[in-house]
Amino acid sequence: MSEPKKSEFEKSEFHKTAAECTMWTEEAGRLIEKARGQGLSLAWDRLEKQTPQCNICEQGLSCAKCVMGPCRLIPGLDRDKGVCGAGADLTVARNFGRFVAGGSAAHSDHGRDLVEVLHHIGSGGAPGYEIRDEAKLRRLAAEVGLESSGEVKAVAKALARRLGEDFSSFGPGLAFLQRLPAARKALWDKLNITPRGIDREPVEMLHRTHMGVDCDPVSLCLQAARTALADGWGGSMAGTEISDVIFGTPAPNKSRVNLGVIKKDQVNILVHGHNPLVSEMILAAAADPKLLQAAREAGAAGLNVAGLCCTGNELLMRRGIPIAGNNMMTELTMVTGAVEAIVADYQCIMPSLVDLAQCFHTKFITTSDKAHFPGAETFHFTPENARELAGRVVGLAIEAFKKRDPARVDIPAEPIEIMSGFSNEAILGALGGTPAPLIEALKAGTLRGAVGIVGCNNPKLKQDYSHVTLARELIKRDILVLVTGCATSAMGKAGLLVPEAAAQAGPGLAGLCRTLGIPPVLHVGSCVDNSRIIHLCAVLANAVGVDIDALPVAASAPEWYSEKAAAIGLYAVATGVTTHLGLPPMILGSPAVTDLAVNGLKDVVGAAFLVEPDPIRAGEKIDAHISAKRQALGLSG
Amino acid sequence: MSEPKKSEFEKSEFHKTAAECTMWTEEAGRLIEKARGQGLSLAWDRLEKQTPQCNICEQGLSCAKCVMGPCRLIPGLDRDKGVCGAGADLTVARNFGRFVAGGSAAHSDHGRDLVEVLHHIGSGGAPGYEIRDEAKLRRLAAEVGLESSGEVKAVAKALARRLGEDFSSFGPGLAFLQRLPAARKALWDKLNITPRGIDREPVEMLHRTHMGVDCDPVSLCLQAARTALADGWGGSMAGTEISDVIFGTPAPNKSRVNLGVIKKDQVNILVHGHNPLVSEMILAAAADPKLLQAAREAGAAGLNVAGLCCTGNELLMRRGIPIAGNNMMTELTMVTGAVEAIVADYQCIMPSLVDLAQCFHTKFITTSDKAHFPGAETFHFTPENARELAGRVVGLAIEAFKKRDPARVDIPAEPIEIMSGFSNEAILGALGGTPAPLIEALKAGTLRGAVGIVGCNNPKLKQDYSHVTLARELIKRDILVLVTGCATSAMGKAGLLVPEAAAQAGPGLAGLCRTLGIPPVLHVGSCVDNSRIIHLCAVLANAVGVDIDALPVAASAPEWYSEKAAAIGLYAVATGVTTHLGLPPMILGSPAVTDLAVNGLKDVVGAAFLVEPDPIRAGEKIDAHISAKRQALGLSG
Repeated sequence: MSEPKKSEFEKSEFHKTAAECTMWTEEAGRLIEKARGQGLSLAWDRLEKQTPQCNICEQGLSCAKCVMGPCRLIPGLDRDKGVCGAGADLTVARNFGRFVAGGSAAHSDHGRDLVEVLHHIGSGGAPGYEIRDEAKLRRLAAEVGLESSGEVKAVAKALARRLGEDFSSFGPGLAFLQRLPAARKALWDKLNITPRGIDREPVEMLHRTHMGVDCDPVSLCLQAARTALADGWGGSMAGTEISDVIFGTPAPNKSRVNLGVIKKDQVNILVHGHNPLVSEMILAAAADPKLLQAAREAGAAGLNVAGLCCTGNELLMRRGIPIAGNNMMTELTMVTGAVEAIVADYQCIMPSLVDLAQCFHTKFITTSDKAHFPGAETFHFTPENARELAGRVVGLAIEAFKKRDPARVDIPAEPIEIMSGFSNEAILGALGGTPAPLIEALKAGTLRGAVGIVGCNNPKLKQDYSHVTLARELIKRDILVLVTGCATSAMGKAGLLVPEAAAQAGPGLAGLCRTLGIPPVLHVGSCVDNSRIIHLCAVLANAVGVDIDALPVAASAPEWYSEKAAAIGLYAVATGVTTHLGLPPMILGSPAVTDLAVNGLKDVVGAAFLVEPDPIRAGEKIDAHISAKRQALGLSG
Repeated sequence: MSEPKKSEFEKSEFHKTAAECTMWTEEAGRLIEKARGQGLSLAWDRLEKQTPQCNICEQGLSCAKCVMGPCRLIPGLDRDKGVCGAGADLTVARNFGRFVAGGSAAHSDHGRDLVEVLHHIGSGGAPGYEIRDEAKLRRLAAEVGLESSGEVKAVAKALARRLGEDFSSFGPGLAFLQRLPAARKALWDKLNITPRGIDREPVEMLHRTHMGVDCDPVSLCLQAARTALADGWGGSMAGTEISDVIFGTPAPNKSRVNLGVIKKDQVNILVHGHNPLVSEMILAAAADPKLLQAAREAGAAGLNVAGLCCTGNELLMRRGIPIAGNNMMTELTMVTGAVEAIVADYQCIMPSLVDLAQCFHTKFITTSDKAHFPGAETFHFTPENARELAGRVVGLAIEAFKKRDPARVDIPAEPIEIMSGFSNEAILGALGGTPAPLIEALKAGTLRGAVGIVGCNNPKLKQDYSHVTLARELIKRDILVLVTGCATSAMGKAGLLVPEAAAQAGPGLAGLCRTLGIPPVLHVGSCVDNSRIIHLCAVLANAVGVDIDALPVAASAPEWYSEKAAAIGLYAVATGVTTHLGLPPMILGSPAVTDLAVNGLKDVVGAAFLVEPDPIRAGEKIDAHISAKRQALGLSG
């Protein structure tokens, strides 16, 4: 063949460019049209300009990891090896390994920030922060073998130190691995993929993908799995658990979603990014009577904080703060003309936002020393100054309100009601503190299984369509859906995050929802909070006495885009949870790596990836998977 | 413009494809011709097939870090932004940051292995290893603030633990940073580039380059510098220092270089890679009388261990073991038909080697769990089993000797004499234990300055030409050259690593060499041992009472290829040492990043990169740089 062939995915009807169809929701469509009228460039426009994308890169067949290169491999031609001699399988595996390492590093570096702040709280150096869930602090301390009954700050400091050791490569081993079923831990040890240190694994992944180190695609993929596990059972899990300790463990609450949560008559501050450390401080500052007074003096009816992306999910889970949208909605928020400030920490913050802000009165404010944006207002938040800086940020937003042009204000939707706050503690609490009722429901077939639908929006796919369609396909089959990250907004806008959505569920699940007063799609958190899902899987598996891969569960990232999502998918699979992807990672250039991902891994870790762009067919396949798992457990399909 | 323009580098006469000129040394040429006659593919051939290389990747303008992409930026066209909104500067900075992280991670993971083995020695779990330089162990322990007079194993364990903490992100700070002049440390603190943990910095680099984190090219480049410093003053320095403790601190010795060190009548075992942990064990096993006897019984006159690449440099420095060649010679060694085994650990081991080995009787043997090669003989060396496995590896080589085809044997050169072993301890020892004589020589102008020539061979450049030409240009100007890594073989083969080469030096340097009996080009180690050079710079700067950037010194990587070389270059520059590169990193697509690299960094860290493919012009520019530094110190140019 003369050119690398088009992937199956590219040929599918779900892989469309912006020009080809209505790729967005109605709410988004109105603002996209408006933005285009104003000559503004959005992600969909840039995707169109980038189309066709490089087929060699898309297949994982290009390499720029040394200056003997860059190389582009075209299997079948005599360009089938890089200068170093790497073929397609090795090149794809190297690229995939680094892709996963990027995601794992992002989550884990987020977790590190929480460990640091917990240590500061313990040392008295974080005036704006406190321990809101002391019981969870003590429970976690006891769980990881620490003295848990002492003075609260001392316990906080000890827990921070213990989890800090998980980032080292010479520590006692990851604290939360003891949550695993013994069989899973033994399997990882046998495969040599038990993570040894949260930082060590991505660093070794980088090392192994340097020219002339690991040249075995399988070995590289296993190290990618170990790197992902260091995220899921290490960095992300620390992030989730310590966020709960500091800001409170989520409990069911009611809130609202979509651009309608932006208030026409208020100072609107959107918090964007992933880490609650800053957004919680902004929220606290916005309740300051002096700042409220200043807002009123500026002519506003109040101060309105709403969330975006995953820091939005953090506030939604713990405080019921409304969420304006997910990653693909962030650009559009400003087109409402009513956003005074976007306060960003890190991850998934499109570089385009700062340019767009300059076309409006919106202040684009960065808060992390790890994430600078040229042209932004920069505040370097630390545990020591966070409370004070948050007040200044809110002050900036109030100033910006004075420059708002009322003629440009266009908020295209009324907010939609949602329920949130389903931490594992809340779920198990509602069941009387034990997973037994859940297991009984699974045994009875009232509940046939559970699927975590997670991950992002991607402009290549029709906005929210796969998320929502897949969720409906599953709940109607009595499969409970747990949702995190950017999938949340999609579900909420489709009306699936309220108890009334039980009407769309199968009879078993509907009955369960009505009994408990919960939706059939439960919001369990942000993208680091996928650690809640794997933890819950471990709790269930331990209670049943099986390994995790025996459970009638699955995961899905129908519209994912990021390296973090790849890390999540891989740690789910390595944990034993079969994972659906709505579009493939850039591995199709290697038949060996692709086959390992979708088939081979089953024999290795008892789970694999399932790539299926059509959410209806994906629902059928996941249903079949769950039936098979049920039957293997001796349950009715 | 319709296409990204060709870089100046690409237009230069030094950027030639294999077809265009004789790209190799005479020794190599003979074997290349032979290999081609046998239909074997070598790096030069693969480079030719990969030419033209992707101009977008080469300029750092492609991005495959999320599946909204891959994106390729073409500034000036409307493809000037990625889907996320990243422009050329950001895309280049992200790519460069990851490139450096790859190199830093490789070195540091190597250093980690030595820390682990030192800990095993301290715990009694490494039967093949011992402390050969107890004095250095105690000196280092005292230097980092540990009790240094106790029982040797206890001191070893304590030092391993202390250096282990440097890999953590919650440790006391990198142990060796106290070697720095106070002004340099203060500058790094001010710039926020003091490395906090050896693993933390590459992980944060990965995090920052995830979509939507750090979007400021300057901030990304500073984090790249911090990542590189974590290598130079962290991982690499630990690697060097602990290797000295375990295997002995190098002292001047005599040895030989080139393919002629392969012996026609012996069992030839080439050790390839970087880490002395395995190669030292192979060397020890090859001295075992039983194995020697087995070799004789197989018809060989003896067991000959020779080095390749940097593990070769490690053995050469400490044991005077001959070195067969550098990274671009590794494929050719097998074409001699006389190599029984290549024993590889990790880094710079072309994936092609295992295929080539299968065309000969050569056993290709891997030893690290981090570096698998499909088709290789795999031995998983650990501190516990290393001694035993080394014997089995040597046994395999003896078996292979029996299958050697004498008709295919062609060793194309007679070995050339060299001197090696110039550790800082050896250099300062020769000067009476103090840098004072060196400083006096610099003041007097007998010695005008010093330049470290480091790094790899690259098939894009005429083999060894830039290394050797630049060295000659410098020594004739009374500038001492320190050489590490793959540059070493080039210098050795050109006859520059013997005292007699003083005849090619200027009168001042020549006199100095004759007085001390040393060559004008001093071999100071492997590529992790560039830490020796920056350490020596710190010793000199402290003795003079200036910051490092005031010294009349420079570094150069004239023929580099790897991510590690980029990390080394960047830590040199961030340490204050202006660094010449014979070919640019993949940054030319960003005017901002390129300008920062070659100009802007001067105002930030007092040093910058100097990109110049012509080694004669490079010599002139380095000379001018050294003159300027001398004048600023009030010395004659």
